[in-house]
Amino acid sequence: MSYVLGIDGGGSKTTCILMNCSRQLIGRGEAGASNYQSIGIEAAKKSIETAIKESLIASNMIQNIETQNTQVKAICLGLAGVGRPKDIEVVKNIIQDLRDNGSLPITWNLQPHNIIICHDALIALVGGIGHNVGIVVAAGTGSIIFGRNSQGKTKRVGGWGHILGDEGSAYKIAIAGMQAALKSYDGREINSCLLADFQQHLELANIEDLVDVIYRRGWDVKKIAALAPIVDRAAAKGDQVANKIIDDAVEELFKATSTVIEAIFQPGEALEVVTTGSVWGSSGIREKFVNAMVEIFPGVEVILPRFEPAYGACLQALGSLI
Amino acid sequence: MSYVLGIDGGGSKTTCILMNCSRQLIGRGEAGASNYQSIGIEAAKKSIETAIKESLIASNMIQNIETQNTQVKAICLGLAGVGRPKDIEVVKNIIQDLRDNGSLPITWNLQPHNIIICHDALIALVGGIGHNVGIVVAAGTGSIIFGRNSQGKTKRVGGWGHILGDEGSAYKIAIAGMQAALKSYDGREINSCLLADFQQHLELANIEDLVDVIYRRGWDVKKIAALAPIVDRAAAKGDQVANKIIDDAVEELFKATSTVIEAIFQPGEALEVVTTGSVWGSSGIREKFVNAMVEIFPGVEVILPRFEPAYGACLQALGSLI
Repeated sequence: MSYVLGIDGGGSKTTCILMNCSRQLIGRGEAGASNYQSIGIEAAKKSIETAIKESLIASNMIQNIETQNTQVKAICLGLAGVGRPKDIEVVKNIIQDLRDNGSLPITWNLQPHNIIICHDALIALVGGIGHNVGIVVAAGTGSIIFGRNSQGKTKRVGGWGHILGDEGSAYKIAIAGMQAALKSYDGREINSCLLADFQQHLELANIEDLVDVIYRRGWDVKKIAALAPIVDRAAAKGDQVANKIIDDAVEELFKATSTVIEAIFQPGEALEVVTTGSVWGSSGIREKFVNAMVEIFPGVEVILPRFEPAYGACLQALGSLI
Repeated sequence: MSYVLGIDGGGSKTTCILMNCSRQLIGRGEAGASNYQSIGIEAAKKSIETAIKESLIASNMIQNIETQNTQVKAICLGLAGVGRPKDIEVVKNIIQDLRDNGSLPITWNLQPHNIIICHDALIALVGGIGHNVGIVVAAGTGSIIFGRNSQGKTKRVGGWGHILGDEGSAYKIAIAGMQAALKSYDGREINSCLLADFQQHLELANIEDLVDVIYRRGWDVKKIAALAPIVDRAAAKGDQVANKIIDDAVEELFKATSTVIEAIFQPGEALEVVTTGSVWGSSGIREKFVNAMVEIFPGVEVILPRFEPAYGACLQALGSLI
């Protein structure tokens, strides 16, 4: 029997799925980060190797990974921040090393076109929808909107990171919430419960101590993004300032998605839009987005992810075998 | 003869002015950063010591600092980011050390109330206006609006740093410019010359390489803020997107200043507002701000700084002698 490997490599976790040629999930494994730009090539390689190994162990067929062999005919890696030819070369070398060093009980049977290195938005799209036509609206710590039409044409909007973009992301919602709280404290903004809510959640004696939290404690983007639900809950309570922030986030996500639709799809074309990421955990945000979407684009259906990105990577790998 | 020292301590430079009791500038010296939170207490102490020494050398009266003595009766230090009692304690200890170690040819004759440690916005106000009533609208890399009325009541708006605030600052204008350029590139925003302008200025093969500049080359807030004139020039050329960014910045600075006026001044009260910082180097921004100000607050006169912050620190020090 022959198999494919689909890998979703991110800044905090790497997931690998082993799939057979009938699209059946055989094994699934996880490991640490594999963003080589942050953690270095050796650490990224180790994470990818561990995730593959774990997927082999998890598969029922392989009881003892030392002695068994699995024939792998295609591999697809979707990796955050990998887009430029230089990045792709680095990741291809990682795969070559894993093949050469023999540390995995795998019989590699790969043609060059069966090694696919792509942006993580593509595998999120393919996994989320279950095939490779549609749009993924990813809004977690960061945000990116990525679409592919039936002719294979793709369009990306956003994904510029927390300083240059990430509109509608959890990071941006959290930051907007804190900025509004401080403006309210200054007297520049109408009163908002965000002031008390952030103070209470972060256990601050005074809202001025936010400065300590953000600049001196070295909070990273992920940790700040995790504060977004404070804004979401304040909006649900009816806070006007928080609702404005949520509406702005929905507007940004809507505008970005519209741009992708208008760029590569026909007017009125039936199409699925999959939402992924923590921001959609807020029922308020998702409902507002869905309402705006179906009103302007009647052919659009907004869905929840059918499969995870690593599964999408497997489908991409299978696609290369045809 | 007796003197006072006024020190303006910042994140990249420390300035010291030696003044006599007739408000005459006797000497002026500069040294490196004295923000102890970034560079440590010893380095901050060294910068303050050097700036004082340089001001003594620069004064004509002291030809040989080894043998001459200057009697200092008051000292005021205005320091960025110094507000909490803990910070003030640290800076007081630095002054105490400088007095004790005898490295400066100064006869210290200080009562506790003649040692003034304050926020740098206060000395910018006092220096900029020439006395301690009015408002300073500081918009450089960051932004803060600070006012003091004739009863001594103060009000601060903004100054929350580049992540939590700094609306209307050069950093925020530069970031908004790059975000707009990328939105324009994505097709989410109308065409703007900002796209070509940033690409050309930063010598990028492709605007996507902005990601490299901002995230991988480790550009700090100051270096990013220095890109604000690109937006300013685009606005002057008539670019609609750039003009919106400039208008938003003016609106933020206006709103923050209005908040200070309404908090501590009487309606219609005559008052001077001094503008400091690189943002005001743009004639477009300053003109828009002045027009909005005098329209809504007829008693307000917007002025350029009369003296520098270190001079303001001297005036504060002199004030403690009365």
